[in-house]
Amino acid sequence: MRIDIITVLPELLEGPLNCSILKRAQDKKLAEIVIHNLRDYSTDKHRRVDDYPFGGTAGMVMQIEPVDRAISHLKSQRKYDEIIYTSPDGETFNQPMANSLSMTENLLILCGHYKGIDYRIREHLITKEISIGDYVLTGGELAAAVMCDAIIRLIPGAIGDEQSALSDSFQDNLLAAPIYTRPAEYNGWRVPDILLSGHQRKIEEWQHEMSVERTRRLRPDLLGEDE
Amino acid sequence: MRIDIITVLPELLEGPLNCSILKRAQDKKLAEIVIHNLRDYSTDKHRRVDDYPFGGTAGMVMQIEPVDRAISHLKSQRKYDEIIYTSPDGETFNQPMANSLSMTENLLILCGHYKGIDYRIREHLITKEISIGDYVLTGGELAAAVMCDAIIRLIPGAIGDEQSALSDSFQDNLLAAPIYTRPAEYNGWRVPDILLSGHQRKIEEWQHEMSVERTRRLRPDLLGEDE
Repeated sequence: MRIDIITVLPELLEGPLNCSILKRAQDKKLAEIVIHNLRDYSTDKHRRVDDYPFGGTAGMVMQIEPVDRAISHLKSQRKYDEIIYTSPDGETFNQPMANSLSMTENLLILCGHYKGIDYRIREHLITKEISIGDYVLTGGELAAAVMCDAIIRLIPGAIGDEQSALSDSFQDNLLAAPIYTRPAEYNGWRVPDILLSGHQRKIEEWQHEMSVERTRRLRPDLLGEDE
Repeated sequence: MRIDIITVLPELLEGPLNCSILKRAQDKKLAEIVIHNLRDYSTDKHRRVDDYPFGGTAGMVMQIEPVDRAISHLKSQRKYDEIIYTSPDGETFNQPMANSLSMTENLLILCGHYKGIDYRIREHLITKEISIGDYVLTGGELAAAVMCDAIIRLIPGAIGDEQSALSDSFQDNLLAAPIYTRPAEYNGWRVPDILLSGHQRKIEEWQHEMSVERTRRLRPDLLGEDE
């Protein structure tokens, strides 16, 4: 799959998009992420892409013209499954949405910045507004990076089999069971005996029980139970 | 305030933590973010910090010993308000939590990686587990960056008065009103007349109405109304 990102801060995204599993997925040609500097689409001689808001609200607003030029240019080259704007009032991003977006071919993500973007962009150019959570960020760049990471790691081959995404939290609506590694005792704190027992079937039963217990205690909503 | 971050991928965090408003806040000495490479605390000659899980689960597990050494070292230098682990099964991060963490003095964030961390770290060394949303990421680094961004921008002086955080979405449990900037007409799409009218009181009434209308339509839960 391919993800294009339009941003005023390309340098912010370099690290997150070129490390670890995202780097590996791109090296293996499983995914391609292309960052576009919005300023390249400005017609202003100072490469400005923002202006004061009508009506005297606080903050600067990202203008429609450079955004329209950038999106039109990219749309002339390929068909996008979704043109996404990251915004705290969008639909809340979650694992089912990551699963479904990981099966698309081309995604375009517009990162907002300043106080926000001209609302006409959202009405006419964007097909999907996504929020990664109920908090306000400086810009949409980190939200875009979070989405890329959650989506691309689900592409078959992106993470090794030994780290199968199928046993992750949320995939079966259960939180993961506690995990432990060497040493078996540290500072007087011991790994549960069952995990050292070698009884694979009993270990799996224990892991399932712990998953259910932790989910019931910490996130009863995932089980459809009220808190 | 000061935020220490323990990670196996310091290079991922350089960009997000040194751009834009986070850079300005650090330049103005309003905040200090210090990244620590967990491998510096490994006693292994290959600087390994992970090992196979007990009980045969998929994936590698971050070991307790280097984490304990790193946290102990940092705790010997200052008192932390919270020692945070970023995990999809932690308490969900939101704007009230960002507000409250922005008033602390020292935070320590441990970024998980691989399949997870030895559970004894979570039981004995961590004081708060936070999730930025119901999705699984490659590691805790992006979650840490998201939290730093949401928290530090709230420190008085971090963003200019003209972008006052007080008018952001969530701060009054309302989504922000639509905003527009020049040109007033683009592609046949016009800015609402009211915003060009110059009647400041009527504009503010309209903005409030739009905030309430959008919140009721998109996020009735914020108003305490059922969907």
